[in-house]
Amino acid sequence: MSYFTIAWLDDGVVCMIDQRKLPHETIYNDYTDYREVATAIRDMVIRGAPAIGAAAGYGMALASLQSEGENVAAVRVDLATAADTLRQARPTAVNLFWAVDRMLARLDDPRLTDVAGLREAAVAEAKAIAAEDAAINRQLGQNALDLVPENATAIHHCNTGTLATVDYGTALGVIRAAHEAGKNINVLVDETRPRLQGGRLTAWELQQLGVPFKVIADGASGYYMRTQGVDFCVVGADRIAANGDTANKIGTYNLAVVAHENGVPFYVAAPTSTIDMGTSSGDGIEIEERPSTEITHAGDWQITPDGIEVGNPAFDVTPAKYVTAIITEKGVAYPPFTESLARFFV
Amino acid sequence: MSYFTIAWLDDGVVCMIDQRKLPHETIYNDYTDYREVATAIRDMVIRGAPAIGAAAGYGMALASLQSEGENVAAVRVDLATAADTLRQARPTAVNLFWAVDRMLARLDDPRLTDVAGLREAAVAEAKAIAAEDAAINRQLGQNALDLVPENATAIHHCNTGTLATVDYGTALGVIRAAHEAGKNINVLVDETRPRLQGGRLTAWELQQLGVPFKVIADGASGYYMRTQGVDFCVVGADRIAANGDTANKIGTYNLAVVAHENGVPFYVAAPTSTIDMGTSSGDGIEIEERPSTEITHAGDWQITPDGIEVGNPAFDVTPAKYVTAIITEKGVAYPPFTESLARFFV
Repeated sequence: MSYFTIAWLDDGVVCMIDQRKLPHETIYNDYTDYREVATAIRDMVIRGAPAIGAAAGYGMALASLQSEGENVAAVRVDLATAADTLRQARPTAVNLFWAVDRMLARLDDPRLTDVAGLREAAVAEAKAIAAEDAAINRQLGQNALDLVPENATAIHHCNTGTLATVDYGTALGVIRAAHEAGKNINVLVDETRPRLQGGRLTAWELQQLGVPFKVIADGASGYYMRTQGVDFCVVGADRIAANGDTANKIGTYNLAVVAHENGVPFYVAAPTSTIDMGTSSGDGIEIEERPSTEITHAGDWQITPDGIEVGNPAFDVTPAKYVTAIITEKGVAYPPFTESLARFFV
Repeated sequence: MSYFTIAWLDDGVVCMIDQRKLPHETIYNDYTDYREVATAIRDMVIRGAPAIGAAAGYGMALASLQSEGENVAAVRVDLATAADTLRQARPTAVNLFWAVDRMLARLDDPRLTDVAGLREAAVAEAKAIAAEDAAINRQLGQNALDLVPENATAIHHCNTGTLATVDYGTALGVIRAAHEAGKNINVLVDETRPRLQGGRLTAWELQQLGVPFKVIADGASGYYMRTQGVDFCVVGADRIAANGDTANKIGTYNLAVVAHENGVPFYVAAPTSTIDMGTSSGDGIEIEERPSTEITHAGDWQITPDGIEVGNPAFDVTPAKYVTAIITEKGVAYPPFTESLARFFV
């Protein structure tokens, strides 16, 4: 089955696969209003830091088309409003802010003097963000090849494949690149409660790629490391601070600590757009608390009694000391990350 | 709401609450055949090591009533068959084997010379196992009081309350005793995938006890330890080896490692019947692999695509070095456990 995460249709429509329905239904939703895109990000029709970045770019492009401003100054006022709305969709993934800022910077170009030209530039820039993401991920996967043994068992958390990006994936791209290079790689897929992106989305993607895998409960990762041998863990990131502290899907920190204790390398795979040099450490990263129904329910099935309290942080921060290396399109960074990450931005 | 886990009805019926249906339906099942009891253990109508022990005792009592043997020798042949069937129900919890062996030893008493007397002894011994378990758990809770601060946040994994025992609970008994002693204790409840004993059963029990709690995804425990302050973790056990290595619900090992890394005390609470002095270390404990549907589904809801593989170990082994203390009805054991546990059996 062929599928795509997000695409710009030439009549000014953004089309996204509805990831809440996968793997059981393959439904694509069309969006023509940037506010609907913001809602789709918040409701996790689309998720994954790079995919959210692409969606934000297209959201800004839609805003430029939607604006009824009669000159570029008036359109820019509407774009500022759209930027605020999109930024508020989710707080943790830095790619959202990065993409909005990139769009604003491009559209602030004083050479854009008429509305048609501004709109054309907006659509082109959003398309460029998306196209670059796909290319970046392929490069990232190539950069990781030397880290993957010929016969490897990897643990993967959440979903970081095509569905989390525009194409190919980040951490799952590392696995995919190894598989495509002929390495014998098999994957233990953390199901990733509460939203089960591993059991639903990563399993669905690996199945189509023909990569051997088993889905496991998140709590079982240490059992496999201790008893069966695991060569490495690989995860994506929603934001990487300048010192290498990594915000990623809840459960990543536990996995990293258990990997560390078992001497299993722990890799973070992300484009450099996920590195936030303006945040010095993970302590500065806002962690989103999501709705309680994600814990009280699995799909339509209610787990808990009525009337209980839950804690539902969507992300956690893994301190840099548990990260063996950070794999990007610009190369592989090793500790000390404060220096190795900074080199990507000179 | 008042409830009980398992009870012997005087007309030779074992009655158990169906834990697969909780918290949404409160259904009690009646059993008059030891083979049905074995199936109920295997299918997790009843679960929790001490509760499984009580069920096995009652299963043996049923077998004595079912036997058509005309003399004690013939009944003992049937009891041996029943013992085999019950032992095969689940492989990890040692209380199952402990209770079967205790029943066999009692019924091997040469002073039992007639069938009626043998049956009477079987029922009495099974009732004694159950009654002792309830008393043991209350004592265990008292023995833990000094370990619990006046204001405490605890993380709890799986279910270890009344539902996992005959009454009161082990690790949840520690929390309950602290609450009843007037301590201000609140609990972060690991939901405990795949069977969600935390979200379903522990939440239901704590709600009725009036102990404040929040249900969290298993992967979130480290987030709370790092960012919010956790005073201790407390779990039950399915089998404790002579060196303190502890087999318990899958996910316990990850929790213990993360607690260790964060300097959070990690307590195991279990009756001494869970300590298996015949198993020198955790390496000798068989880990049950359970059906794939526990991972592919949550309740009736299918998570994963069709046709995938899963890994579903029901338990893991936490090496003794991550265990701060083992709380039993005979006192609190500290490292080195090889010595402190042995003292319980002199």
